[in-house]
Amino acid sequence: MALLAGDALQTLAFEWLTESPLAAAQVLEQVRVLSHASGVCGMAAGQSIDLQSVNRHVDLAALKTMHACKTGALFRASVMLGALCAPALAAETRQRLDVFASALGLAFQVVDDILDVSAATSELGKTAGKDASDNKPTMVSLLGLDAARQLARDLATEAQGALDALGSSGLLLQPFIQQVVERRS
Amino acid sequence: MALLAGDALQTLAFEWLTESPLAAAQVLEQVRVLSHASGVCGMAAGQSIDLQSVNRHVDLAALKTMHACKTGALFRASVMLGALCAPALAAETRQRLDVFASALGLAFQVVDDILDVSAATSELGKTAGKDASDNKPTMVSLLGLDAARQLARDLATEAQGALDALGSSGLLLQPFIQQVVERRS
Repeated sequence: MALLAGDALQTLAFEWLTESPLAAAQVLEQVRVLSHASGVCGMAAGQSIDLQSVNRHVDLAALKTMHACKTGALFRASVMLGALCAPALAAETRQRLDVFASALGLAFQVVDDILDVSAATSELGKTAGKDASDNKPTMVSLLGLDAARQLARDLATEAQGALDALGSSGLLLQPFIQQVVERRS
Repeated sequence: MALLAGDALQTLAFEWLTESPLAAAQVLEQVRVLSHASGVCGMAAGQSIDLQSVNRHVDLAALKTMHACKTGALFRASVMLGALCAPALAAETRQRLDVFASALGLAFQVVDDILDVSAATSELGKTAGKDASDNKPTMVSLLGLDAARQLARDLATEAQGALDALGSSGLLLQPFIQQVVERRS
């Protein structure tokens, strides 16, 4: 039943997009972005790499690819769906929003890996230490805790830099960076 | 991995629709029809009813509702996606195509139930007798074999009647009726 609920919710996202008051061409582009990010080039691909990585040696580049697919693609799609509501947005602005979303998506995963080894289960909202007990490669197992924390800070700086280039219109997105990097659960 | 493949294929259907050369408004309507047929009002709902029906008494009306959701919705969507390629199609023509698809979808399920009790596993392409051993309600367990066969014929007649009203343009769809009703696997 849980799997069916997932199937139903995935398709509901597309149905809801079709009820949008935006122009058909804009909505269709949103459908394209969301479906691309969810499927064989996005979330489903990332989860598949994840399943195949258990008990195997994975290097940093492969782990980043996995995260880029598994959660990065949906972070980027979330930001791009908003950007596509403004059809006149300059290509350069879209590009900066995409850099922001990519950096934030990877930061989210790095923080996830840090919390898995540093937070208490009671605070985390899920079982702490699960990655290590599942023998899954993480940013912390590959880099060590200090370097993983530095990477999270670097990614936050990269995301902030992309927003800074947008001027005052980037201010609304700024709180998301702190929220992702400083979260405890 | 099989579940992930399913997730990826479901979303790929929407991605492929967005690559259609048709006008954006037509494609968006196709996305709406397909997502509606796949989700909480269609396939996922039907499969959920199916799971809940095992080991329970289900009457004919409830079984028809289940089939209408589980496979009927996708039969109708398949036909409607084709119809939506012709934006100038009269509402009456669409309605007749929908009657054709609904009758054919239910006929497919009735024949499925008949084959489950009457065909050999070697011919069927899946395990014969599985519905009864799973204690699942079927058209045959509710109606008996003869009445189920009559229902399949009646549905074929209904589908044929809807096509007849379309004149010569309905001829291309006619072979599907024989294929569904006379199939052996």
